[in-house]
Amino acid sequence: MSNEFRVVGKRYPKMDAWERVSGQAVYVSDIYLPGMLYGKILRSPHPHARVAGIDTEQAKALPGVKAVLTPKDITDFNWTKCPGRGHHDMPILADIARYAGEDIAVAAAVDEERVQEALDLIKVEYQPLPFVIDPEEALKPAAPKVHPAGNLVGGKPVVLNRGSVEKGFQEADLVYEARYSTPLLQHATAEPRVCVARWERGRLTIWDSLQHTFGTQAGLAYVFKIPMSKVRVVCDYMGGGFGDKIQMERYSVLASILALKTGRPVRIEFDREENFLAAHHRYPAVCYLKYGARKDGTLTAIQAKVVANAGAYCHLDGAMGVLETMKGVYRCPNLKGEGYTVYTNTPEGGAMRCVGHPQGQFAQEVHMDIMAHKLGIDPVAFRMKNFARLEDGDQDKKIPFSSNAMEECIRKGAEASGWAQKWQKPGTSPGPVKKGLGMAIHSCRHGAMALPSAGMVKVNSDGTVNVLIGTADVGGNQKSTMAMIAAEELGVPLDVISVTTADTDVTLDTGSTAGSKQTITAGNAIKLAAADAKNQIFAIAAGELKTAKENLELVGGQIRPKGSDKGIALTAVLRKAPATITGRGTGSLLKGAITHCFAAHFAEVEVDTLSGKVRVLNIYAAHDLGKVINLSGAENQTDGGVIQGIGFGMTENQLFDLDTGICVNPNLVDYKLVTIKDIPEIHIQFIEPLDPGGPYGARGLSEPPYSVPAPAIANAVYNAIGVGMTDLPITIRSILESRNRGAKA
Amino acid sequence: MSNEFRVVGKRYPKMDAWERVSGQAVYVSDIYLPGMLYGKILRSPHPHARVAGIDTEQAKALPGVKAVLTPKDITDFNWTKCPGRGHHDMPILADIARYAGEDIAVAAAVDEERVQEALDLIKVEYQPLPFVIDPEEALKPAAPKVHPAGNLVGGKPVVLNRGSVEKGFQEADLVYEARYSTPLLQHATAEPRVCVARWERGRLTIWDSLQHTFGTQAGLAYVFKIPMSKVRVVCDYMGGGFGDKIQMERYSVLASILALKTGRPVRIEFDREENFLAAHHRYPAVCYLKYGARKDGTLTAIQAKVVANAGAYCHLDGAMGVLETMKGVYRCPNLKGEGYTVYTNTPEGGAMRCVGHPQGQFAQEVHMDIMAHKLGIDPVAFRMKNFARLEDGDQDKKIPFSSNAMEECIRKGAEASGWAQKWQKPGTSPGPVKKGLGMAIHSCRHGAMALPSAGMVKVNSDGTVNVLIGTADVGGNQKSTMAMIAAEELGVPLDVISVTTADTDVTLDTGSTAGSKQTITAGNAIKLAAADAKNQIFAIAAGELKTAKENLELVGGQIRPKGSDKGIALTAVLRKAPATITGRGTGSLLKGAITHCFAAHFAEVEVDTLSGKVRVLNIYAAHDLGKVINLSGAENQTDGGVIQGIGFGMTENQLFDLDTGICVNPNLVDYKLVTIKDIPEIHIQFIEPLDPGGPYGARGLSEPPYSVPAPAIANAVYNAIGVGMTDLPITIRSILESRNRGAKA
Repeated sequence: MSNEFRVVGKRYPKMDAWERVSGQAVYVSDIYLPGMLYGKILRSPHPHARVAGIDTEQAKALPGVKAVLTPKDITDFNWTKCPGRGHHDMPILADIARYAGEDIAVAAAVDEERVQEALDLIKVEYQPLPFVIDPEEALKPAAPKVHPAGNLVGGKPVVLNRGSVEKGFQEADLVYEARYSTPLLQHATAEPRVCVARWERGRLTIWDSLQHTFGTQAGLAYVFKIPMSKVRVVCDYMGGGFGDKIQMERYSVLASILALKTGRPVRIEFDREENFLAAHHRYPAVCYLKYGARKDGTLTAIQAKVVANAGAYCHLDGAMGVLETMKGVYRCPNLKGEGYTVYTNTPEGGAMRCVGHPQGQFAQEVHMDIMAHKLGIDPVAFRMKNFARLEDGDQDKKIPFSSNAMEECIRKGAEASGWAQKWQKPGTSPGPVKKGLGMAIHSCRHGAMALPSAGMVKVNSDGTVNVLIGTADVGGNQKSTMAMIAAEELGVPLDVISVTTADTDVTLDTGSTAGSKQTITAGNAIKLAAADAKNQIFAIAAGELKTAKENLELVGGQIRPKGSDKGIALTAVLRKAPATITGRGTGSLLKGAITHCFAAHFAEVEVDTLSGKVRVLNIYAAHDLGKVINLSGAENQTDGGVIQGIGFGMTENQLFDLDTGICVNPNLVDYKLVTIKDIPEIHIQFIEPLDPGGPYGARGLSEPPYSVPAPAIANAVYNAIGVGMTDLPITIRSILESRNRGAKA
Repeated sequence: MSNEFRVVGKRYPKMDAWERVSGQAVYVSDIYLPGMLYGKILRSPHPHARVAGIDTEQAKALPGVKAVLTPKDITDFNWTKCPGRGHHDMPILADIARYAGEDIAVAAAVDEERVQEALDLIKVEYQPLPFVIDPEEALKPAAPKVHPAGNLVGGKPVVLNRGSVEKGFQEADLVYEARYSTPLLQHATAEPRVCVARWERGRLTIWDSLQHTFGTQAGLAYVFKIPMSKVRVVCDYMGGGFGDKIQMERYSVLASILALKTGRPVRIEFDREENFLAAHHRYPAVCYLKYGARKDGTLTAIQAKVVANAGAYCHLDGAMGVLETMKGVYRCPNLKGEGYTVYTNTPEGGAMRCVGHPQGQFAQEVHMDIMAHKLGIDPVAFRMKNFARLEDGDQDKKIPFSSNAMEECIRKGAEASGWAQKWQKPGTSPGPVKKGLGMAIHSCRHGAMALPSAGMVKVNSDGTVNVLIGTADVGGNQKSTMAMIAAEELGVPLDVISVTTADTDVTLDTGSTAGSKQTITAGNAIKLAAADAKNQIFAIAAGELKTAKENLELVGGQIRPKGSDKGIALTAVLRKAPATITGRGTGSLLKGAITHCFAAHFAEVEVDTLSGKVRVLNIYAAHDLGKVINLSGAENQTDGGVIQGIGFGMTENQLFDLDTGICVNPNLVDYKLVTIKDIPEIHIQFIEPLDPGGPYGARGLSEPPYSVPAPAIANAVYNAIGVGMTDLPITIRSILESRNRGAKA
């Protein structure tokens, strides 16, 4: 494979940046349809309560109110086994509220004020029930039951076994155990959940801020018992997803039902508080780790027990998501994992820039650092010794990685950070303001190819190109990246390419924009589609030029025999085509290998042990993402991931009052996001092994940069003050209290 | 080819009928964009005048006015040689008005009232010039020149020659000469011209009521010097085109320029008067015919001189459009044609349910009837003797027709009308209220395959289907017809199909919805695309069923070996597909044959010779359109064509005052459309030879039903009163004046 690319790997501005920043981009909340109504959901004020009665008469009588629906009004629709939705434990509207903020009723009215007034007029008689917020409490036999079958999702833990951990611990010179915890975090997307639903006779169109329009198409077809061809889901511009928007949710169904019942378009748009109380979040996890290692640093056993807080409904098996980290980042012959995904009376957890890997990464990387210290081994050397090699891949199924430059990530990151010169043993930094250098590595299955993977490319008669791809552009440069791949493959300039995304009527499904997979999944499809189009064009040109099509190239708008400077114009060839040239491509899975993405982050911090303030000075982020397609985009993703990851490490924490079960900080004032003042210098390095599974050797990137800053910072703090940081976020209190904990670690 | 179809040839409701009649369909004038401005064009009150000065200061100063443009403000744009536009003789805005209604300036403002006020405030100093309205007058040397190069378009007539008309006249027993004329007619679409243009950075989106979105995409890319991929033209619903909307027009360019200059979306919507004064129309034609025939009825010579009134700008070579009729309906070894397309100070002529064939049909069919009478031959027998046979086709290039059931059209139409029983010699009907039976035949190149022809079909995972086709649905059942073809070919129910039309971003070009060609042009593409999709599905099923894919059929949602009742569900097969199945198809031209559509109409009338009133009692319409795909659609087209054709024959006539050059009836009160009371019983017969060039043997239909009612009615009146009707429309005055003309004919 040639390393010489014309477009791929270069820096270009995001193709819709101007529209986004100038306000010209039409987001869902910019859509106003004639006669459109405003829908709003009535939410439970109680974390757990039975709805004993509900009176909507006054609300319905309010002028301008067009519909008020309670659970009994929506029994006609398919829902329970809706494809693509978690454990089918969530009703569309609840007659038992299982968290404070749960959907109890919904209304639609002519304006936003009127619909709020309607909600205020609904009289609900709640019978409060005992509730539980903490997942470890929820596992106790006497705990209030969130669902009748009990609080352990699936009724039993998920279990992983490889080799024998008992044997591993026997072989170990060091066995170290500790408990780690991570908080409940919000995506804090610029754009909260929002949709506009419209029915035209038997056909539903919904504009929805979604990472997976096709999943919602299938879901809505199921709900309304109509053909998928009668459901159109469109997501043109999106103000961020980060996992909150990866499947069809209740609000989309409610808007569609309201639109059906009123015969008018209906918008439902969450406000910020609703997005805190009733959208997904990163679920908190508690990890009990017990690892064994020999004196030389070789890991002999990994044992992990994970308790993940699913919230009131189980979107995904959260504990398993965390355990994947223990399973695959390091090579180890002996593994035992136990995962408990637990219902509590908190909002439904879900994906957030990955699912559970960041929680697991934090626990494992802090654990590894403390072990390195106890073994007297440099943390870099300890990782170098143990990271899963190319041949390790899936250690249970014995399938190698498709490519792996973890070693180079660690080495280059260490070099950039000045590790050899700066690193000192934990707790040896003098004075009250201590310096620390820490690191963490990352490996996960994200950024890998997945199915479906299908795309189309149209070549207009003037040689310009329209790319059609089902991928939602969540703000992560998906449009630009697809344009670059099409331009590279076709041999045309980048600026003649337009991209249509995420419209189920006219584009092809590439799955959700999630799992960091669209560069490779949609990228493979578009590369193949462009190659298909080029092949058709070259076939015509070959006839004109009396040569074999394999012998041709497209350069500067001319198609010519390779090496020749005489050819014919692309536009002249296109005039010979019987119709618009359309290329289509369907990507396929790489066989005999699994694909991971790899990273090593190094954090340099300054800890004021008197005030408790931690300042992150530098992050050195080395990423193996295969061949970089979109350099600006990759840098942008890395910057964004690091910044959000610092929030994970140091500021963000959605809190519930344990006495009332109510969230106390459902807003961006009290829930602390990182601000521009908290952001350190971010030094990015990309290591680019050509992966055989991706377009031009690419893999994905989006989730890994988020996963590693928190443990790297925790380890830098550990390095500075000599006390391991076992709980996130690392706050002033963490540092001040560490004086007491110091003795223990 | 099997004659047994599951869907094709049956009656189904138009798939978007409900949306259209319920007001839910979003036409262009239903599109309101945030910040949208209203554009309006200032029109010349003079038929010919130089603009000596133009003062826009007051208009610009009016609050709410965002732009006022005159010719000097728009010189930056490419226009002159714009592809797809007539003779490049029209400016975007004129500094010499060449017809009353011509575009002089344009303004945009925040609402419709304000923009009208702005136009009222523009001060234009006109220097009136001499003008000419009548095309025969315009050919005289002393006539005012509409353009500097003279009034004859192209500077010389178009000439046709086959054999020797001199020889033909020598061989003839009868040589008959006469003059015929047809009026200026309006499409009178339910929806006048309208567009909304919006720029997002370098990208233009325009919603435009257009029969050819892709042509306008190319045109706007040319005007603004941008890639075609940066121009999106969308036409979802349209309220009729009939030829008025077959290419990019000035209003679309002006709206796009205003949107560019103001940075806001701009709508320009014609009112009814503007559509009369400044949109296309059917151009008037004068035909001088001189035909020769032997005693036995054999035509020996056809000589025609046509003067067509192009209007102030030449959209198309109108005289040639008329002469095509003389060239091809009848077999004749000797032909001479001379065509004069002439500029006058009237609005630009254009296509209207065909181009010039109806004008030619009227003249020729009336001429043929009078000759039949002079020869003492029954008009049916005279046509039977002379119509161009299957082998005749293009009589100059010696290429046969692809199929031809003209004989059956004539025979079945005659039978249905009771010709043998009812027909009497012209002028023999007794009493003051006379009965008449007349006929006319039609043959034209419309309804034939054309390029480009490309389409796509997506099969969703639930076995339902989205059809993507560039064809504009002008109200002529195009969506329904494509759905029927896809359903037939794939073997799925019709109601699981959705159709997306006419969006240049996401569909493929099938040329304009004009020339009655989309059933065959888009139809071939969709049939091939559906077959391609089915082939991919069967390939997967064949693997599952361990049989050859050629051996499979899809019946009732099951794929099974032919003849077997055991198979697997389509949805199960689709789950095995790596991605959404996408079929694509590109139709191609039939070789070695030309395709025409054929018809014979029979009209029965009652003429009150005292009052001059003509009542059409019955129209018997026999059409050869190849295999009928969409039976309800074809009946609907035929009814619509007959009704509009009766208007052509009897009521419609846009008139200009010869002293002022001003149109005197630019509205639907004074311009008389046929009403429900004027419509006779319409008896339709379809003759369906399977044409080798079309999907399932289909050809097109739309234009022919319009072309024949007028001459059939004229001949029925001739039959009733014995006086030939040489000028349209046939009014009370025509009948009353015929008493004087009776002696001559």
